[in-house]
Amino acid sequence: MNMKPNRDALMRYMPILDWSRRYDRDTFVSDAVAALIVTIMLIPQSLAYALLAGLPAEMGLYASILPLFAYAVFGTSRALAVGPVAVVSLMTAAAIANLGLTDAASIALAAGTLAFISGVILTVMGVFRLGFLANFLSHPVIAGFITASGLLIAASQLKHIFGIDAHGHTLPQILGSLLRGLGGFSFFTLVIGVSATAFLFWVRKGFKPLLLSLGLKPRLAELVAKAGPVLAVAVTTLFVWLFSLDQYGVRVVGDVPSGMPPLTMPSFSPNLWNELFISALLISIIGFVESVSVAQTLAAKKRQRIVPDQELIGLGTSNIAAAVSGGYPVTGGFSRSVVNYDAGAATPAAGAFTAIGILLAALLLTPLIYFLPKATLAATIIVAVLSLVDFSLLKRAWGYSKVDFAAVTATILLTLGFGVEVGVSAGVLISIGLHLYSTSRPHVAEVGLVPGTQHFRNIHRHNVETVPHLVTLRVDESLYFANAHFLEDYVSERVVCDEPLSDVVLMFSAVNEVDLSALESLEALNLKLKDMSITLHLSEVKGPVMDRLKRSHFLAEMTGQVYLSQFDAWAALKG
Amino acid sequence: MNMKPNRDALMRYMPILDWSRRYDRDTFVSDAVAALIVTIMLIPQSLAYALLAGLPAEMGLYASILPLFAYAVFGTSRALAVGPVAVVSLMTAAAIANLGLTDAASIALAAGTLAFISGVILTVMGVFRLGFLANFLSHPVIAGFITASGLLIAASQLKHIFGIDAHGHTLPQILGSLLRGLGGFSFFTLVIGVSATAFLFWVRKGFKPLLLSLGLKPRLAELVAKAGPVLAVAVTTLFVWLFSLDQYGVRVVGDVPSGMPPLTMPSFSPNLWNELFISALLISIIGFVESVSVAQTLAAKKRQRIVPDQELIGLGTSNIAAAVSGGYPVTGGFSRSVVNYDAGAATPAAGAFTAIGILLAALLLTPLIYFLPKATLAATIIVAVLSLVDFSLLKRAWGYSKVDFAAVTATILLTLGFGVEVGVSAGVLISIGLHLYSTSRPHVAEVGLVPGTQHFRNIHRHNVETVPHLVTLRVDESLYFANAHFLEDYVSERVVCDEPLSDVVLMFSAVNEVDLSALESLEALNLKLKDMSITLHLSEVKGPVMDRLKRSHFLAEMTGQVYLSQFDAWAALKG
Repeated sequence: MNMKPNRDALMRYMPILDWSRRYDRDTFVSDAVAALIVTIMLIPQSLAYALLAGLPAEMGLYASILPLFAYAVFGTSRALAVGPVAVVSLMTAAAIANLGLTDAASIALAAGTLAFISGVILTVMGVFRLGFLANFLSHPVIAGFITASGLLIAASQLKHIFGIDAHGHTLPQILGSLLRGLGGFSFFTLVIGVSATAFLFWVRKGFKPLLLSLGLKPRLAELVAKAGPVLAVAVTTLFVWLFSLDQYGVRVVGDVPSGMPPLTMPSFSPNLWNELFISALLISIIGFVESVSVAQTLAAKKRQRIVPDQELIGLGTSNIAAAVSGGYPVTGGFSRSVVNYDAGAATPAAGAFTAIGILLAALLLTPLIYFLPKATLAATIIVAVLSLVDFSLLKRAWGYSKVDFAAVTATILLTLGFGVEVGVSAGVLISIGLHLYSTSRPHVAEVGLVPGTQHFRNIHRHNVETVPHLVTLRVDESLYFANAHFLEDYVSERVVCDEPLSDVVLMFSAVNEVDLSALESLEALNLKLKDMSITLHLSEVKGPVMDRLKRSHFLAEMTGQVYLSQFDAWAALKG
Repeated sequence: MNMKPNRDALMRYMPILDWSRRYDRDTFVSDAVAALIVTIMLIPQSLAYALLAGLPAEMGLYASILPLFAYAVFGTSRALAVGPVAVVSLMTAAAIANLGLTDAASIALAAGTLAFISGVILTVMGVFRLGFLANFLSHPVIAGFITASGLLIAASQLKHIFGIDAHGHTLPQILGSLLRGLGGFSFFTLVIGVSATAFLFWVRKGFKPLLLSLGLKPRLAELVAKAGPVLAVAVTTLFVWLFSLDQYGVRVVGDVPSGMPPLTMPSFSPNLWNELFISALLISIIGFVESVSVAQTLAAKKRQRIVPDQELIGLGTSNIAAAVSGGYPVTGGFSRSVVNYDAGAATPAAGAFTAIGILLAALLLTPLIYFLPKATLAATIIVAVLSLVDFSLLKRAWGYSKVDFAAVTATILLTLGFGVEVGVSAGVLISIGLHLYSTSRPHVAEVGLVPGTQHFRNIHRHNVETVPHLVTLRVDESLYFANAHFLEDYVSERVVCDEPLSDVVLMFSAVNEVDLSALESLEALNLKLKDMSITLHLSEVKGPVMDRLKRSHFLAEMTGQVYLSQFDAWAALKG
């Protein structure tokens, strides 16, 4: 690597400069085949997710064109397929509902602005390498949130299956609204909706075996099976057109303008930004976490590497691209990325080719989807999102850790009961709160020598040697402001209610930090023990902690010594 | 202790039932003497802090009567003197300013309501034993906040010294407002203000030596010196009265209604509660932290115990008492509690006697303070709060830990620049954020055997033995969601760029928790290493962590073993 540094930096920020140099005919063919298959899958998804977001169907197509080019330039994953996804579409709907807008133009502007703000947030996070912030979403919180979102989305689509009006962003609202409107259901819509749903569930399980028994090769059968939704779309559309069912209560997608994506400008109204900012932040973080975990899973299979901070830039520019081309917030989708990977996508160029496919659809196919029933789109959404619902984590968390169980249960219930934004925010705060709470009351073990070794363990769990005048406490937590008083109180109580003590050793093997608050507590403890003629010692203080203690007066004031190992302390003090 | 359990519970919630049974004549005399001295000190303080809070002077007196009785019943500290204090008065002023009220009655109602909400918050926290929440205010944040508040208070009082109008709740606002109004200063006010300030500073340093040289006993001299503010009040009031200076621009306290504290009702308007809630929460926590640290310091001197959760109830009922008797938020004050302690207060009854003293003042003395110049009250405040200002912590934190330094600096700057509420909230969030950030990127040490021992230390800091095919990593942090990926990435990078490895041991001596997210990461790591034919082992797993791991499938799936001690692992694997 003898390139100039600025070339290096440019390649880091624009991975396309790296992989495009090695692009050849074979790679092109792989990418093009994958793109074709993803395009077929993405057309109905784009339309459906736009409706889920409460937006006109064409915005889903627009969100699947320019953003894919942007990701192809700035993204690092070879297989990630960017575009509208279910959870982010639901969050978009919730964010826009908060604004209380009614006219279509303002809603579209708000959706574009949301994508723009989210794009800016993601790009800025990427440039400042803040990708680690996503780590504060714990796995149980993400899993609980995705499960609850899947349920909310499925429930919200039932209105299209019944052909009635319903609304709401929480499960009680949606179900209440559904029940009230159920009397006015449309018979033909229900038939189409239920048939499409049943067909799509069957496609997932029965279609591939059928294709195999018809003699297709396994890989081809797998891929053709992914075209099930397109088949459902085509058949039900044809049906509605043939029998003019749109005149018998079946709602259809209707006029979708055909042509290139429009050039749009997000709003820069400070008021609107203020109202959308928190929503945009949540969408950015959820979108990033979802996308990066798919990208990492797929990259690991081929021993490739994802650069999370660069992914932020890839997704950020994709969202900005969505904002300026009539789209709405996008991210990497799980199922379509897996299809892209399975179909052999070798570089991000596959995404660009998919974008060309969708562009052709926007130019040529929109007249054909006039009669596409909304019930069919709802069926594709329901079938797609129910695969996100997974309650097994609840059982797993219950068995492993009540704290994790509390976090996942709270996230699910709050998301269902109060909507996506409350759910995910509360999930993060609850995880962090529970973690801080547990570190604020650390485990402290009194330890003794395991006979025949130099190893010390808990006197209540192991058969160990102890000495009456010497107490050794192993503090199982970093000492910082939240538990500074705790240790002081703990040691004070331990030393008063026992036979005469001469020495207390604090074994610091698990103390990874001693902050200023804790240092002050240690100083106070040292004085308190001194008053009681008890000497305070430390053992197994780690390098970084020792470096810092040396910069304070504590070591000089401490009545006892610092021993390298607990065994040294034991040997010196057992008397 | 053969009492019935409900009697025990009652005594826990009402400590008066405990100490009052042993109350005798000697204790009474001690308490009464202390109460007399604190009363003399508290009269000018009450008036001054009420003005600081932007309230009529009499509210300061009212806040020093009923609340003290309440604390005497429910509090656990023998020496704490409750009443209006500087920082809480400043926070009250800021909270009320947010409301934009102009008429005196609404302002008084808001102050009472603030005390009531704060009282409810404190009491509820006490009943649910949430006192530990205060631990999340780190020492540097508290110290920084108090220092900055002291500066803000002193700056806000300069207007009274100059006799001009000025306002604002941040340092730039206050100083800007002062500079603009400086042209209209009042000569006589300035003379009184500067003389009073100079006198009070001198009292702090020079009065006691003078009294000693006049032959007073040291303890008496100490206590008489505390009466300096009363002397300043008396002399300047006399001066204004004699020369009718109130007609030459010297602002005076004016009419203060005399009589019993009024019975007042807080507002129960949901709107007002909503607007005041965050302020009340911050006032509660700051008041509690300040009060409990004084109480603990004083109790430690006599080997008495403070029960923080009961202190919450004591302070909570005091604030509710303030709300229903024309007062405003109160807490335990530092300087007056020290005086109370030094003067020999033996039980909380001293507080009740002080309350009687203040009640007598409210009944009899109010006509005498008509001519009391506000400049004198401002001088007592300035002299009192400047002793809170302490920048030495900045130096100490800089030397010890840059993280603590960042927290204290940010707290000071944000409090000065954006007011008390932003300052303290940001301080807490910054401390927690920095702590989480540091735990999200833990220290990991590669360790080897210290020759001649069974002890393992960092290969970069100590001269240790290692084996080429075996890498032992000591993870210096609990494994939880925020750092789950970090360890996986760290180990993956460590194992690829080196000579052929057969075994990796993770030494878990400092791992105090493995949550579900981290467990999933360990499982992924185990699989990844398995693909590379590297065996993963654990050593020194603590009891609580091991208990939990046993409840998962991980131990069964792990390619290697769990060793009790790192030395066992070494002995088995060094080959």
